Amino acid sequence: MCGIIGYIGKKSTKDILLDSLELLEYRGYDSAGIALFPDGANEPVVNKVAGRVSRLREVCAGLTDEACAGIGHTRWATHGGVSDENAHPHQNGRVTLVHNGIIENYKELVKEYDLKDKLISETDTEVAAAVLNQLYDGDPEKALRELISLLKGTFAFAVIFADQPGKIYAVRNVSPIVVAMTEHGAMLASDVAALGVHAKEYAFLPEYQVACLSSKGIVVHDEKKHEIPLQLMTIDWDTSRGGKGGYAFYMEKEIHEQPDAIKDTVAPHIVDGKTSFEAEGIPNSFFRENQNIVVIACGTAMHAGLIGQQLFHTLANIHTDVAVASEFTYTNPVIKPGTLVIAVSQSGETVDTIEAIKYAKKKGAKVLSIVNVKGSTISDISDYCIYTHAGPEIAVASTKAYTSQLTVFYLLAIHAARLNGLVSEEESSKFLNELQRVPEVIGQILEKKEFVKKMTSKFLLSENAFMIGRGLDYSLLLEGSLKLKEISYVHSEAYASGELKHGTIALITDGIPVVALVTQSALASKEYSNIREVQSRGASMILITRESLYKDMNIPEDDTFILPEMDDMFMPFPAAVVMQLIAYYTSYTKGFDVDKPRNLAKVVTVE
Amino acid sequence: MCGIIGYIGKKSTKDILLDSLELLEYRGYDSAGIALFPDGANEPVVNKVAGRVSRLREVCAGLTDEACAGIGHTRWATHGGVSDENAHPHQNGRVTLVHNGIIENYKELVKEYDLKDKLISETDTEVAAAVLNQLYDGDPEKALRELISLLKGTFAFAVIFADQPGKIYAVRNVSPIVVAMTEHGAMLASDVAALGVHAKEYAFLPEYQVACLSSKGIVVHDEKKHEIPLQLMTIDWDTSRGGKGGYAFYMEKEIHEQPDAIKDTVAPHIVDGKTSFEAEGIPNSFFRENQNIVVIACGTAMHAGLIGQQLFHTLANIHTDVAVASEFTYTNPVIKPGTLVIAVSQSGETVDTIEAIKYAKKKGAKVLSIVNVKGSTISDISDYCIYTHAGPEIAVASTKAYTSQLTVFYLLAIHAARLNGLVSEEESSKFLNELQRVPEVIGQILEKKEFVKKMTSKFLLSENAFMIGRGLDYSLLLEGSLKLKEISYVHSEAYASGELKHGTIALITDGIPVVALVTQSALASKEYSNIREVQSRGASMILITRESLYKDMNIPEDDTFILPEMDDMFMPFPAAVVMQLIAYYTSYTKGFDVDKPRNLAKVVTVE
Repeated sequence: MCGIIGYIGKKSTKDILLDSLELLEYRGYDSAGIALFPDGANEPVVNKVAGRVSRLREVCAGLTDEACAGIGHTRWATHGGVSDENAHPHQNGRVTLVHNGIIENYKELVKEYDLKDKLISETDTEVAAAVLNQLYDGDPEKALRELISLLKGTFAFAVIFADQPGKIYAVRNVSPIVVAMTEHGAMLASDVAALGVHAKEYAFLPEYQVACLSSKGIVVHDEKKHEIPLQLMTIDWDTSRGGKGGYAFYMEKEIHEQPDAIKDTVAPHIVDGKTSFEAEGIPNSFFRENQNIVVIACGTAMHAGLIGQQLFHTLANIHTDVAVASEFTYTNPVIKPGTLVIAVSQSGETVDTIEAIKYAKKKGAKVLSIVNVKGSTISDISDYCIYTHAGPEIAVASTKAYTSQLTVFYLLAIHAARLNGLVSEEESSKFLNELQRVPEVIGQILEKKEFVKKMTSKFLLSENAFMIGRGLDYSLLLEGSLKLKEISYVHSEAYASGELKHGTIALITDGIPVVALVTQSALASKEYSNIREVQSRGASMILITRESLYKDMNIPEDDTFILPEMDDMFMPFPAAVVMQLIAYYTSYTKGFDVDKPRNLAKVVTVE
Repeated sequence: MCGIIGYIGKKSTKDILLDSLELLEYRGYDSAGIALFPDGANEPVVNKVAGRVSRLREVCAGLTDEACAGIGHTRWATHGGVSDENAHPHQNGRVTLVHNGIIENYKELVKEYDLKDKLISETDTEVAAAVLNQLYDGDPEKALRELISLLKGTFAFAVIFADQPGKIYAVRNVSPIVVAMTEHGAMLASDVAALGVHAKEYAFLPEYQVACLSSKGIVVHDEKKHEIPLQLMTIDWDTSRGGKGGYAFYMEKEIHEQPDAIKDTVAPHIVDGKTSFEAEGIPNSFFRENQNIVVIACGTAMHAGLIGQQLFHTLANIHTDVAVASEFTYTNPVIKPGTLVIAVSQSGETVDTIEAIKYAKKKGAKVLSIVNVKGSTISDISDYCIYTHAGPEIAVASTKAYTSQLTVFYLLAIHAARLNGLVSEEESSKFLNELQRVPEVIGQILEKKEFVKKMTSKFLLSENAFMIGRGLDYSLLLEGSLKLKEISYVHSEAYASGELKHGTIALITDGIPVVALVTQSALASKEYSNIREVQSRGASMILITRESLYKDMNIPEDDTFILPEMDDMFMPFPAAVVMQLIAYYTSYTKGFDVDKPRNLAKVVTVE
């Protein structure tokens, strides 16, 4: 999280920084700040405030447009609360810098460098600035290399030295930095979202190498000060998709983009009516029955993996685990030789997932990643990568990236089933037809969005909610529940219906909203028994089911959503969209900033 | 859940029924009722009320003591709310019965037997009574066999027919019934807890066989009306352990019994200073590195399995999955040949776990169970069984059963590690010494219980709470969080600290209580970073850590609990006891009935 920007060029540095920070704001919006180095000044001038970039823009209204270099930052707070002091950039002596990541050993550094009385903020970042200032003897590269050898943790720094006007230095470990030469100057940023307006090509800064941006261009040096050529990549996102396109929030727009995102993700992988991953070069041996698969991911992507797990089990008879990335790396998981790790990440920069991939590779696993952003770290360090074609997702709460990830799992599972001879060509073809029907079915849900909006009245006054389901329904509700948590601030918890009785049902009392999802034919009668159990404790029910499984449970029509019919296995798609709309309209009606929920950032680049 | 009792004998039937129902009340306490068949009457007389057995006792105060037979029931509501009408026994025509379980196809039966206008209650049970009455032509066994052939679901019935005075019939599928001949008459009950006062021996009623209790004794018939001999088992629980022993609640008593329970569970499995499972006949091949283990359990027992999983991974390099039993059976898990299923259940009657075991056995798995109640269904259907020696656990919230289950996992994991040559004899011996130190360390925690009581003030006014930790700490907090939910009605949710940022941190605002557990040396610095993240969002912290890992986080002393030092791997034991005490005192201080939390029952015998 946190967004970093740097610019040296002919346009107004202030404007470029502020505009870019707005594009990076989904990475964090606790505070924002910029440092401008006015031509001829002795040091950069810092302006920073707690709150959004819009507030920073007000504060900076009177500032000069002329500067020889500038860096900026939008913050997701880790060390130290949300305040003006803790905002970046941080200055110490000749050093002014912005930082993304976490420095784990900052307290040790405070002692070692005797900084206790020399710090203004509570941040780990200011400690790095102070240490760098002590190390700096006029050679920026040398000082930066010394600094990073002292740090434990993850970081991406953009630094201006007071005696080096017209230059920005950058270095990183794990946390991303991309650089680009535009027609009007050199830029660096945390991700490509901030560069698309200005550049057609960009490059990731290699870890532990030092970049120097100046009016002459971008130079990257390795530890021996040899220049490293940049690996340029094309920005191929359709920039006309940008903006909210008439929707109130990006999230609503992105919910509506799902039919296209799924179509675009399916299309390249059906060749002559059959699944194909030849373009990615993925060997068929990955999908044999004796294979072990471990899906590694965080949050929403991990929830996509839980659906994937059931598909691999049911269709392909391949044993599949799903691991929370942050736990995986540190709990000594048993990785058998030949294990296939499937890593899932929208941004491709999720640091917990990166660490888990590195760990699994050390243990001999092969890594296939499912990623939305081309050229990102995860696609780079994986053996194979399948791209989702969701396009840029701006809202912090993921929608189209999730259903696109699901789509890839459906493609992979039927592919594996066919390779293992567990489905006939005809069955495989029928499956793919049903998958291709998903966009149309989602369209039907979207037509009923006003109905869903009315259903959300139950969540407006309740701090708590529960969601119950079995099998695929349970996995889907984990995601539905997370959506409601992250943008609507309702403490919603999804439970496997059978587990509720083992304790949590104690929390079900008069009027507690409980969402029940019933889409799986074989589990419906058991699920309706569970619904009766919570009803008899006074729960206020919302029932989401399908015509063929509907049972009259004395739940009012307004609180019952009937999903379009699909094969059982595909029901997570329409159900996902209903859950997204529930979360969206709850947040919307409560008057929250749907796209930028409190405390959250889009790309999680700290552990 | 639900408790069933039946009695025919020389003592006061009313008193025996009411006293027994109180002993069975931990199985459910939504409503209670008894049917007494007075000598010479035409049919049994039913008294039943919503609420506890104590209320039923008041209602029954004026009733005759003389009866030739009687049945009783304490209910955990499934179909139909908590009301007098929905309480058992249910009567229809010549049939009076009590039921434990769920009849899934009761709506279909209502249609098929045209019962729509003939029912008083909303229960599935009354439908069974009405169908049985239609089937009954004077031959109770024949009618019962016809009935059970029509039913989908689980059930245990005790039935009195109006024209069969002095007889009680019983039949069951999955839901348990035990029978016993006492010196003063014949008894049946849902479990042995109700029989211990009267009998020294008992037997489980075999599934689908019909028992008839009369003054002549207990006769069980198979489908050909051949008599089946009872498999008698001894009741060997120390009945002197009964009662609350001066504690305010059973839960407090059971928390204090943990040192003994752990000692008693360890003792039989250390022979000549080494782990041994020879007495149980468990083959060493179960613990080879190429083995796959799947732990199957529900609720608290499943949480014990999550700790077990990490032990098997870390110590024995054996790949281990943990499955929620109710999900396992219906999600097509891949069970490879030779897979070892470890099923965990305090009562040995958890119906979801029973179904999962049956499923796994069909797929060729071997089953080793960890059970606290001898002769229970799960120990019966497993290939091997290790008993925990926790003694009877009366409080609904499990404490000593959980730590005893943990103890067995520690024994199994080091056993496997030694067999696989991954630890030396010396390391194994050191491990066992540390395990044997656990009772003493728990004693140290118990001495500080008043301190914990003070810490609970944070939970008294908050509806919501979060708990964060990594690795073993996270697994332990899932259990700690469940405890707080089930008896204190705080919506507490445990999160892997690394996952919090992927959405749920949106719920952290000023004053939300967050418990952080930091006991694992290798994870402490990352965990303290996560603590800072929630602190910077205004969380009100409780820190549970150990001296060697303590960091000053500006958390008041009163909100910091320093655990005694043990090897990292053993820290879940002292941490578990602190979490139990937190839940206990929160519930106690709020004035709740700690032992009988609302909506819950001890033994979950419905799916």
